[in-house]
Amino acid sequence: MVGGGQLARMTHQAAIALGQSLRVLAAAPDDGAALVAADTVIGGHTDLDALLRFAKGCDVVTFDHEHVPGEHIRALVAQGVTVYPGADALSFAQNKRLMRGRLGGLGAPVPAGRGVENVDPGGAFRAEFPAAVAKATTGGYDGRGVWMLSTPDDAAPLFAQGLELIVEERVPLRRELAALVARSPWGQAAAYPVVETVEQDGICVEVIAPAPGLDPDVAAAAQELAIRMAPELGVVGLLAVELFERADGELVVNELAMRPHNSGHWSIEGARTSQFEQHLRAVLDYPMGSTALTAPWVVMANVLGGQSGGMGIDERLHHLFAADPAARVHLYGKQVRPGRKIGHVTVLGDDLADVRERARAAARMLREGVHE
Amino acid sequence: MVGGGQLARMTHQAAIALGQSLRVLAAAPDDGAALVAADTVIGGHTDLDALLRFAKGCDVVTFDHEHVPGEHIRALVAQGVTVYPGADALSFAQNKRLMRGRLGGLGAPVPAGRGVENVDPGGAFRAEFPAAVAKATTGGYDGRGVWMLSTPDDAAPLFAQGLELIVEERVPLRRELAALVARSPWGQAAAYPVVETVEQDGICVEVIAPAPGLDPDVAAAAQELAIRMAPELGVVGLLAVELFERADGELVVNELAMRPHNSGHWSIEGARTSQFEQHLRAVLDYPMGSTALTAPWVVMANVLGGQSGGMGIDERLHHLFAADPAARVHLYGKQVRPGRKIGHVTVLGDDLADVRERARAAARMLREGVHE
Repeated sequence: MVGGGQLARMTHQAAIALGQSLRVLAAAPDDGAALVAADTVIGGHTDLDALLRFAKGCDVVTFDHEHVPGEHIRALVAQGVTVYPGADALSFAQNKRLMRGRLGGLGAPVPAGRGVENVDPGGAFRAEFPAAVAKATTGGYDGRGVWMLSTPDDAAPLFAQGLELIVEERVPLRRELAALVARSPWGQAAAYPVVETVEQDGICVEVIAPAPGLDPDVAAAAQELAIRMAPELGVVGLLAVELFERADGELVVNELAMRPHNSGHWSIEGARTSQFEQHLRAVLDYPMGSTALTAPWVVMANVLGGQSGGMGIDERLHHLFAADPAARVHLYGKQVRPGRKIGHVTVLGDDLADVRERARAAARMLREGVHE
Repeated sequence: MVGGGQLARMTHQAAIALGQSLRVLAAAPDDGAALVAADTVIGGHTDLDALLRFAKGCDVVTFDHEHVPGEHIRALVAQGVTVYPGADALSFAQNKRLMRGRLGGLGAPVPAGRGVENVDPGGAFRAEFPAAVAKATTGGYDGRGVWMLSTPDDAAPLFAQGLELIVEERVPLRRELAALVARSPWGQAAAYPVVETVEQDGICVEVIAPAPGLDPDVAAAAQELAIRMAPELGVVGLLAVELFERADGELVVNELAMRPHNSGHWSIEGARTSQFEQHLRAVLDYPMGSTALTAPWVVMANVLGGQSGGMGIDERLHHLFAADPAARVHLYGKQVRPGRKIGHVTVLGDDLADVRERARAAARMLREGVHE
């Protein structure tokens, strides 16, 4: 797996059960996955020599992010390396304009909008979309690379930076959803229950599985959309489809990810097969595992780093374990920095309000400590 | 963790979630845990220098087996290393005669018997116990070091080897059970539901959680016995109490283990907190996790190595995943040898007969392949 973050770290846990050992290409020895995986190569994901050295002897190469240049992936394939997902599929996750175009071509619902290159869309665009959002075509994640446009002047500094942007309508939102599907090389697909994702400042803070009160027909349509798009986009492995549920109940596609995804962390305990094992089963061309829920409600809350000072993460963990012996904690081995995702907590149960409150309380306790 | 087998391998998976990285002292680089843990030291568990080198910088040292000599553990402690469980506790797991004596002193039910040192117990013992079993005082496991005595002559070759033995009544068995408890240094204990263990040729082949049809009072008594023995024996970490349920319904203690135990592998998916995380929480002095079942029935079946030839383990795994997408597989990264434990399978559900049949079928498929 290229990339040594928490996704590779949790994929390594899943690989162990399958009798495998994940080889990791990490940028630094203290990356989350490098701290725990026996077979770590240190190198950059844009360094073709490092990629080739790393890939030697791997059954298949896959990714914990979408930032490896397509030409490097093609060079690996030319050397006989099996790479999933491939460069063509990843290009859609790497470039929002390509993705929007392809999705539109497939008839998938997307926000109204268009690409703009270093040209202020000005008044014409504003007339088209009374509320607009600008997104960097490449490189954005976790709220970075996204700007709400309130006045035409808001766009000026973005263009001044020479950014390539797409500008879209700001979708009147009921909430955000995600549909996660895995697809194997021979084409078997397995869809997870559609979940609700709760964002704050563009960062996912909470995921509820299944999405509460979602019309079963709409949920099925979202799963079918993901299952249909995976082969159309050429995805092997996981495909996470981030969706907006509009105020009128219609779904539109917001983003795509082609790897284990924050919206699927709940599946470690909450589904019979975790997304991490599923991704491995997919890229290794094993039959897919069951995506059945293991409890009526599963809530995952991200743990963000709090202010430094006060009690350390170890003491906070003691308090949490004492307060909620059934909370499931996953820490990523990261240095704590304010706002950084340093772990997540999952709670399962029969009563949604209770499960949600426990998950939030647990994440808060790990972020802030109990006495602050 | 001293020892690089499957118990350390699965403990490493649990350590990752806690934000830790397990350091492993493994005998060889291809030990199951050495294949997957980033921080592996190669060395023998009877080599004090290796133990000291390994222990340097560890918060706490614990074990995946009971074979480290007590004097070495005491030497580590003398150097300021925290070791759980300690040498005194482990002595009971290392020496069956000591264990029997201590349990008898605590009023715990044990089989009738006595130690015999290089002296044929002869006719007198046979008159005492019409059916007898001889056990090596030290070093036995997985059916090794245990001999059923049908005639007095059966014992002669054992004594000829100079073995130190205990000889006991052969308990009229209804079945075997196990009570697993974890205890932290400050004394919190958490007991798992009592399970039934099914043995073949002295090797555990199947574990059913909870033990079917067990009188709730008897189950509670078994848990209380384990909870009471842990502090009496000075155990910190996991204590597995292997029990015989006699034909008359009474329980007697057969064996003790002070580490994650085969009778607790079901807990990875079947309990809210796995025995591996629980052991870490105990030795790190965190509050214990919930031991609640995650399904009405959980069955774990050990996967033993089959005859070589025919389809490989990878192909068998494909067939199993296709046949039962909800079966949970854990492979230990071991070379396949006939009869060797190379992994285990866990199945969960509402109907015991169905769950049990699926677990058995899955283990059979991984052992024998589907076409043999």
